[in-house]
Amino acid sequence: MSQTLDIALKYAYEHATSFIEELNEFLRIPSISTDPERKADMGKAADWVADRLKALGMQNVQILPTGGHPVVFGEKMQAGADAPTVLIYGHYDVQPDEPVELWESDPFTPEVRGDYLYARGATDMKGQIMVALKAIESIQHIGKLPVNAKFLIEGEEEIGSPNLGQFIQSHKDLLACDFALNPDGGILNPDLPTITNALRGLAYFEVRLYGPAHDLHSGTFGGVVHNPAQVLCELIAGMHDDQGRVTLPGFYDKVRHLDQDERQELNRLPIDENTILGMSGALSLWGETGYTPLERIGARPTLEVNGLLSGFTGEGSKTVLPARAMAKISCRLVPDQDPNEVHQQLIGYLSAHAPETVRFEVSLLASAHAAISDRGSPYVGAMEKAMQTVWGKRPVFRREGGTVPVIAMFQEYLGVEAVNAGFSLPDGNMHGPNERLHLPTWRRGIETFIRFFLNLVEG
Amino acid sequence: MSQTLDIALKYAYEHATSFIEELNEFLRIPSISTDPERKADMGKAADWVADRLKALGMQNVQILPTGGHPVVFGEKMQAGADAPTVLIYGHYDVQPDEPVELWESDPFTPEVRGDYLYARGATDMKGQIMVALKAIESIQHIGKLPVNAKFLIEGEEEIGSPNLGQFIQSHKDLLACDFALNPDGGILNPDLPTITNALRGLAYFEVRLYGPAHDLHSGTFGGVVHNPAQVLCELIAGMHDDQGRVTLPGFYDKVRHLDQDERQELNRLPIDENTILGMSGALSLWGETGYTPLERIGARPTLEVNGLLSGFTGEGSKTVLPARAMAKISCRLVPDQDPNEVHQQLIGYLSAHAPETVRFEVSLLASAHAAISDRGSPYVGAMEKAMQTVWGKRPVFRREGGTVPVIAMFQEYLGVEAVNAGFSLPDGNMHGPNERLHLPTWRRGIETFIRFFLNLVEG
Repeated sequence: MSQTLDIALKYAYEHATSFIEELNEFLRIPSISTDPERKADMGKAADWVADRLKALGMQNVQILPTGGHPVVFGEKMQAGADAPTVLIYGHYDVQPDEPVELWESDPFTPEVRGDYLYARGATDMKGQIMVALKAIESIQHIGKLPVNAKFLIEGEEEIGSPNLGQFIQSHKDLLACDFALNPDGGILNPDLPTITNALRGLAYFEVRLYGPAHDLHSGTFGGVVHNPAQVLCELIAGMHDDQGRVTLPGFYDKVRHLDQDERQELNRLPIDENTILGMSGALSLWGETGYTPLERIGARPTLEVNGLLSGFTGEGSKTVLPARAMAKISCRLVPDQDPNEVHQQLIGYLSAHAPETVRFEVSLLASAHAAISDRGSPYVGAMEKAMQTVWGKRPVFRREGGTVPVIAMFQEYLGVEAVNAGFSLPDGNMHGPNERLHLPTWRRGIETFIRFFLNLVEG
Repeated sequence: MSQTLDIALKYAYEHATSFIEELNEFLRIPSISTDPERKADMGKAADWVADRLKALGMQNVQILPTGGHPVVFGEKMQAGADAPTVLIYGHYDVQPDEPVELWESDPFTPEVRGDYLYARGATDMKGQIMVALKAIESIQHIGKLPVNAKFLIEGEEEIGSPNLGQFIQSHKDLLACDFALNPDGGILNPDLPTITNALRGLAYFEVRLYGPAHDLHSGTFGGVVHNPAQVLCELIAGMHDDQGRVTLPGFYDKVRHLDQDERQELNRLPIDENTILGMSGALSLWGETGYTPLERIGARPTLEVNGLLSGFTGEGSKTVLPARAMAKISCRLVPDQDPNEVHQQLIGYLSAHAPETVRFEVSLLASAHAAISDRGSPYVGAMEKAMQTVWGKRPVFRREGGTVPVIAMFQEYLGVEAVNAGFSLPDGNMHGPNERLHLPTWRRGIETFIRFFLNLVEG
């Protein structure tokens, strides 16, 4: 098998440039799942993925409908019944590109500058899907894949995967596997191979407040009609106490206690305040008292204001007392919080605190449970070994602050855990302008996945 | 002179339809002063006004430059040195038309429905300018105007008249007069003639908060980077106490005490909570404790949130931790508050309360002092008498919640007071969608001004 390995690695090395060109094709498709006007592009991206799976010799390649954007499926089951079956997860959708004016190059015209490839989706996660595809292509180049593989590439991750739970439940046989491989994950820095053993969940809300029947003149009505923009600010201000804790009633009731072992493991990661300050450009850090930054990111729930809109926001002045105000608010959740319960907690908070001068509405736009996986499984072991070889050091295990709803769904509906290992860097501007993929790390990722697939059968 | 009166009134009555057609020409010009893209339309509106003044036989008609939109001037000084000189004020600019989707007819295509003419600017205040023009036209139809008249029609009222103070100071001789007539005022209801003896001032701000260097992923950074949208909400929430009072340091220090006489006069107006609820469509009223609604509108300062913008505000969800947040905030001022001092108070508040995790900027976008005028002057008396005749009842005197910066400037730079009498109704949707002019009241307004001009010399 070491000859297989050598030839596969040589193939990947020699095709480094054409791999990027192929990734660029994928990146040029503006597959923004949240934007109804991009529906045709979403279809184009699904077709592109299906074509790649066919080119890899996958069988049973299908674009399967859901209540929203379709799922792309393909499988190669020729390694025999004794070989493990891996379900490789990915998503072909990307975040919106706004604010477009802050991009230094067009979000959907990939551009290499230095060691980076810049484009929306480069690191989250079209580039990561390509790591898996190109590792398999490199191995198959000289023989057959030694494991059974299935691909599930969804189109709604960036909007919270609203239809994926239903899809997995109704395709349990098709998706049956021994474990899942999720490359939609990060690496802490280019020199630090990382396996993520926990992911936070999400509950994403839109809160709308309605005050007077229509926009009013702030001179005529200022002082007698309660301003819904002011009320919204007051309600949001009350959602954190002076310890940085979230005040929704019952919010912490189901939060799993962080024991001393886990705290030590988390704080062993080589990330300190300066690292986070450097990545974010924040003036100073902030958060819940009593927890370190890494504990707050990995193991504590949060409440964020993702958007605010009310009244006049154009250039100049308009003396309006607005009729309504809107906020996008989301909570990152940890085991064992339930997004639907958090929804009820938010409604409870607003019912208790909204004054009678306004009416409120809350929509749950996206939700996902948090996920945790066993650090001692053989599949995790195969990844640990691959990373050890490529980087010359043992990977770190971490709890991730972000959300990959599908991992909790795999646990719940397919009864399998996931190996979460991807090659996205924290400074990759995942959801912001100038998203970028670090190409040297990406190439190491392909080598890692080649070794991982071979480790799975070599032991 | 009663023959003059009769013929003038007959002329106005017979030309009611053509007066509206002429007003419609004016309303079709989208002269939104705050919108840089409407600069050409602003010029068109100024030309239109100048043409109307020339058509009235005005002399010395000029479109005079300022640092921003120009002022239209014209005069007719043929009544002799013994006759009083009135400076008639107006503004040809209008508020923005957004949110356009809430208009039932196009904002700049005037439409009569029932007793109302619907268009942006119909009541604020192109319709009110026409009251003055058409009253003079009706009188001149059979002879000469018995008073000396000057017109000053500016183009920046809706953005706080930033250049008007300078203009008035540098044109004191041109504008010299015995008193000003300001039809940019309201009437409380169609059966209640109203003279406004006080106007609130304004200090309009844009507050911008800057947090991290760019938009961040709320999963990766949520819990460790302070969210500037959350901080903005917390800062705004702190700007009122639980008594509805504004907390900016020193805000009430110069507020003139409301004595018992004035409180009685204010509360004699036939406006109760139900009136205000009906006009605004608010669910219930709100405001500073210890004052009635009319006192709060007329004699107490306020702080309003006119606009909020941060992060993702489109359809769907985006898990962004925004890099910045913006609010438009304005204060209505009463004698003897100073807008520049309030600016310093806001900066003081933010300096004291903004956390070190964010940087803030504050711009003063518009400002105006409050104004008060003598209820016993002969010019006010001429208006009082005209209204008494037209409506068959004595007008009420009121303090207006809105702002007409020019009135304070006339007091300060020309040494004259103003007669504030206009015919805009409180339910005219002045700064909101579906702005409308009540045509029966507008026609009574023209009759009132005809009688007012004649009363000035008849005594």
